[in-house]
Amino acid sequence: MEAGTATAENMALGDEIVGRINELGAISETPGHLARIFLTREHRAAADLLLTWMRSAGMVAHLDAIGNVCGRYEGERPGLPCLMLGSHYDTVRDAGKWDGPLGLITAISCVSDLNRRGRRLPFAIEVTGFADEEGVRFASTLLGSRAVAGTFDASVLNVRDSTGLVMRDAAVQFGLDPEHIGAAARIRSELHAYIELHIEQGPVLEFEQLPVGVVTAIAGATRLAASLTGMAGHAGTVPMSLRRDALAGAAECVVAVEEFCRSDEGGLVGTVGYINAMPGATNVIPGQVSFTLDLRAPTDAHRKLAVADVVRRIEAIAKRRKLMLQIDVTHENRTVPCAPWLRAQVAEAVAAEGYRVFELPSGAGHDGMAMIDIADVGMVFVRCRGGISHHPDEHVDKADADAGARVLLRLIENFRPRDAASAKS
Amino acid sequence: MEAGTATAENMALGDEIVGRINELGAISETPGHLARIFLTREHRAAADLLLTWMRSAGMVAHLDAIGNVCGRYEGERPGLPCLMLGSHYDTVRDAGKWDGPLGLITAISCVSDLNRRGRRLPFAIEVTGFADEEGVRFASTLLGSRAVAGTFDASVLNVRDSTGLVMRDAAVQFGLDPEHIGAAARIRSELHAYIELHIEQGPVLEFEQLPVGVVTAIAGATRLAASLTGMAGHAGTVPMSLRRDALAGAAECVVAVEEFCRSDEGGLVGTVGYINAMPGATNVIPGQVSFTLDLRAPTDAHRKLAVADVVRRIEAIAKRRKLMLQIDVTHENRTVPCAPWLRAQVAEAVAAEGYRVFELPSGAGHDGMAMIDIADVGMVFVRCRGGISHHPDEHVDKADADAGARVLLRLIENFRPRDAASAKS
Repeated sequence: MEAGTATAENMALGDEIVGRINELGAISETPGHLARIFLTREHRAAADLLLTWMRSAGMVAHLDAIGNVCGRYEGERPGLPCLMLGSHYDTVRDAGKWDGPLGLITAISCVSDLNRRGRRLPFAIEVTGFADEEGVRFASTLLGSRAVAGTFDASVLNVRDSTGLVMRDAAVQFGLDPEHIGAAARIRSELHAYIELHIEQGPVLEFEQLPVGVVTAIAGATRLAASLTGMAGHAGTVPMSLRRDALAGAAECVVAVEEFCRSDEGGLVGTVGYINAMPGATNVIPGQVSFTLDLRAPTDAHRKLAVADVVRRIEAIAKRRKLMLQIDVTHENRTVPCAPWLRAQVAEAVAAEGYRVFELPSGAGHDGMAMIDIADVGMVFVRCRGGISHHPDEHVDKADADAGARVLLRLIENFRPRDAASAKS
Repeated sequence: MEAGTATAENMALGDEIVGRINELGAISETPGHLARIFLTREHRAAADLLLTWMRSAGMVAHLDAIGNVCGRYEGERPGLPCLMLGSHYDTVRDAGKWDGPLGLITAISCVSDLNRRGRRLPFAIEVTGFADEEGVRFASTLLGSRAVAGTFDASVLNVRDSTGLVMRDAAVQFGLDPEHIGAAARIRSELHAYIELHIEQGPVLEFEQLPVGVVTAIAGATRLAASLTGMAGHAGTVPMSLRRDALAGAAECVVAVEEFCRSDEGGLVGTVGYINAMPGATNVIPGQVSFTLDLRAPTDAHRKLAVADVVRRIEAIAKRRKLMLQIDVTHENRTVPCAPWLRAQVAEAVAAEGYRVFELPSGAGHDGMAMIDIADVGMVFVRCRGGISHHPDEHVDKADADAGARVLLRLIENFRPRDAASAKS
């Protein structure tokens, strides 16, 4: 069989993965609308199912103190540092089945395949199902991976969900001991690397007609809130030349942001997702407009330059139009670059499976953003239909799930820890 | 005394007008927040006060069947056709004191001045205080002037206000007989013209440093509702080149509308007053945006060309960006031109009072929009501070109120009916 052309008869990994995606996807707060929220009953049921799959794949598995599902497959001898694979098993509300579970289930299937073949490697493999990546319940994301990275903020245990329940009590109801979350933390010397396979959640691989891609970085993001104040007025009585129209000014800013990002060749993206014009009546010139701005780039330096440049352009527009401008950074996430040595190994595995090596940044956040504190991070993206995610229409073709699994399995089997990798080059 | 330079000692008209503006402005549903809504108790109290002022100015006065306050000052002999002056005495909520009452009170003061001097003219003067121009209560404007013009739609009597009260019953409570609204209608041969003095409600006269202006037309308006549909997506995962961002498209439309109207030299104004981007989250590319468009010009032909041109530009933007466009006219008002022969007489009066003659369109609607059906229409604008209207900060300087009154008085005294005017020219 030619590389990269798994036939329908030969998609053992894809078959198992899609079957398990559907099985896990049925564990939901509301049937028909997938919602598996951190520390709920469904979340616990999912964890138990994952533990079962891990054990049947030859792993020793347990739930850690934050609710992460942790499986370990020893290497050629017990106690070796591990290659950690993982993704999250919580979901947003009305979610798709693939965001998170695909990476986790694929990793378990890969270990299962090694185990069936009795294959042991010169390192251990751990698979971690992170308990909370989406942050739906307690307004704080990456709780599972932060616990593993040792950066979990214990004060979050006192945060209440929308029903008033404190996280600490929710953890106890789930069957955890929140006083021992510190025990979930791992240290750098225990890990060779952290590698995550995830659906792209964007349309690029589909556009490129590729089932898999090599992630260059988890793009950092800066979010800004802007407000322009001009002068409200009657839509009929104020001539164009005497207007200080806040919406016309904001519109010019939106167009300028788009133009600036479009002309960037380094993967910068900028989005105005929210806008509000006041007073908001058909026959009144808007006196005040507020809008948000979300800017992301594959490197922090690039993003920071872009933010400064975009802010300067907005300031110039406001000044020229005699609008008062208030603009503030409301949120900032650093970029998490994928380690070059891991990118190289992912690329090798992709090429070995017969696919064109295509690199792209991740615009969405992932557990690697926390794991970077204790390990180098690598990521593999799998194509999803239409780039749709966080929606019931989220879909991955079985052939693509299979391709992702074959790439991950090859990556694992060919994996050289950093020192070995750099010694080789 | 030099023309146009009334001194503080010599502002008899201004003094009387400002005093009465304050007296009438105190008649309100809520003290401190002026609201005098059609057919309410306050509205009736205001009507009674106006009737008193009319009678003390030497007029025969009555309330007609829709609640208009009607005063008549006979000419050199009884029963002559009249020059009708007027404006409205209802208000919006949290209104200013000047919008409507200034024209009405000024007209009464002018008649009072003639009466004091025993001056009779070769035509009668009628002053009409229209009962409803703003349309706050029954969502239908110009009810008073439509009754006078004979275009009142009797079905409106069945419309309910927000409390569920039918207009017919409100009229009876006010003391009217709604079955006889037809009796309020006047016919063309009874009127030489309809002339209204009103605050500008815009900033142009202030910008021109002029107390009064000659109105060229009550600009027609076309309102449109537009909706652009693109593709929602994750703000981080969709590269700029693969986006179909509905808000970026709408922003380009807003900028294009402004640019198009700014480059027009014929008084076109265009406003996007309302915009809504969905789903409206910081980190989601807007998939759908709706916005309104309000276009006004001093002539219908100009406005219609502009609407067609703006729609073509919006269509081109939508097409280029692969956005689905829905655009509909939701409202259309014809332009009411001020009759050239009346504009000329207003201009003469302005010049005779020593002011530079400055012509401008009215972007806001006025009772002339209904009166045009039975009479030629002329209008005089008086400067208001900052162009502010429909707001408690609405203000007219006493000197400007006086200037407006002197112009109106001179206009009345020099008035030549159309036939006489054209015979002369």
